[in-house]
Amino acid sequence: MAYELYYWDGIPGRGEFVRLALEEAGAKYLDVVRTSHGMSAMMEYLRGKHGYLCTPFAPPFLKDGDIIVSHVANILHYLGPKLNLVPKDEKYRIFAHGLQLTIADFVMEAHDTHHPISTDDYYEDQKDEAKARTEAFLKNRVPKFMGYFDRIIEGNPASGGYAIGGALSYVDLSLFHVSEGLAYAFPRAMKNFDSSFPRVARLRDMVRDRPNLNAYLKSDRRLAFNQSGIFRHYPELDQDPGRTGIR
Amino acid sequence: MAYELYYWDGIPGRGEFVRLALEEAGAKYLDVVRTSHGMSAMMEYLRGKHGYLCTPFAPPFLKDGDIIVSHVANILHYLGPKLNLVPKDEKYRIFAHGLQLTIADFVMEAHDTHHPISTDDYYEDQKDEAKARTEAFLKNRVPKFMGYFDRIIEGNPASGGYAIGGALSYVDLSLFHVSEGLAYAFPRAMKNFDSSFPRVARLRDMVRDRPNLNAYLKSDRRLAFNQSGIFRHYPELDQDPGRTGIR
Repeated sequence: MAYELYYWDGIPGRGEFVRLALEEAGAKYLDVVRTSHGMSAMMEYLRGKHGYLCTPFAPPFLKDGDIIVSHVANILHYLGPKLNLVPKDEKYRIFAHGLQLTIADFVMEAHDTHHPISTDDYYEDQKDEAKARTEAFLKNRVPKFMGYFDRIIEGNPASGGYAIGGALSYVDLSLFHVSEGLAYAFPRAMKNFDSSFPRVARLRDMVRDRPNLNAYLKSDRRLAFNQSGIFRHYPELDQDPGRTGIR
Repeated sequence: MAYELYYWDGIPGRGEFVRLALEEAGAKYLDVVRTSHGMSAMMEYLRGKHGYLCTPFAPPFLKDGDIIVSHVANILHYLGPKLNLVPKDEKYRIFAHGLQLTIADFVMEAHDTHHPISTDDYYEDQKDEAKARTEAFLKNRVPKFMGYFDRIIEGNPASGGYAIGGALSYVDLSLFHVSEGLAYAFPRAMKNFDSSFPRVARLRDMVRDRPNLNAYLKSDRRLAFNQSGIFRHYPELDQDPGRTGIR
């Protein structure tokens, strides 16, 4: 039976981290909200029509038979062994999950660069605060998080340039997406991304060149970054590299 | 062998969610940083001295033998079955983990009420923005998250008033802590917390009255809320209930 992914249509958003895993593995899945009546099907779950174990707080969530899994990191922790995208050993699975949760925190911080005050209001209503938050994000937070992941890849005793062990994992796919998102949102600030975080950059390129991923990226299943997602390009928020911590 | 919890001393912070689980279960554990040389022991892990699988991004992390588990939700997912604080059935474990990740998101939002611009700067340098963010938090976000948890408890077919099944889980302990944190930080705004979220309030009281928890709360192992943690009481951020969504 095919997996069912429930996520808003029109943006890559948090759903993209799950799509990348399913696509890389060649798994059968339905991107439910992009089918007819998909939106109302998703809303039924969110409104609790399918019972309390099947009432997630928010998308994305994954349906596998009668199991509903919510939150990106939970979904990837669940799918990892099934899609062969994480080592089977418990110690590695736990480590991978910790890395993915660190990525989740970073994604929330990336989102809050354009919504530092209220997620229920427009960006235009919190533009000055967004500038201040973005400045701190580019100066301190990107170097802290990306520097960490670069050290993790460097410290991996298995050769190959992956985050975990000697093969591709869902963490690598997520790091690819985060790197692409940063480059889309802040092209000026990320000018020296590759020299600042060479191992993350090399991993990003390795992921992009994988046959399944590459075919997906060229397909119409892949949604482009745009002004409604997590990573948004507002030129007025972007900065010269010299003012950031990515030099 | 005793579990080792690594977390900053001096605040309940994110470490408290783990402490509550260990204390309720009567598990043997060492709150490492509160012992002599504990801080340098923690820093060794963060600096990667124990190998890359044992290099968390940030505290809290748990050591169990040669396994290091980082992030609160990951730790509780790991400890849950061992401490008998989650049903063994996979479907329930996944659901519990999803709820805990929702709590993690809420905790980050609670933190950002006093640090909406930069976590590396002082509250005093972002006071106006903190007021605006807190207003949105109390108006929209607290009702959205706490209303969700209230509906989950209500929808639980097992009687008992718990979030998951018919017995206490780590999610209940975390909801207790979040409720206490909100009451500490925003005593005025939370005046109608109990009537707005009656099931969460009842659960909070049930947890507080459990013998192990109650003994812990009265002990010196319990750190009081203060002005350096997630939940901080700044009177100027608090609001009249009428201006919030908790009425």
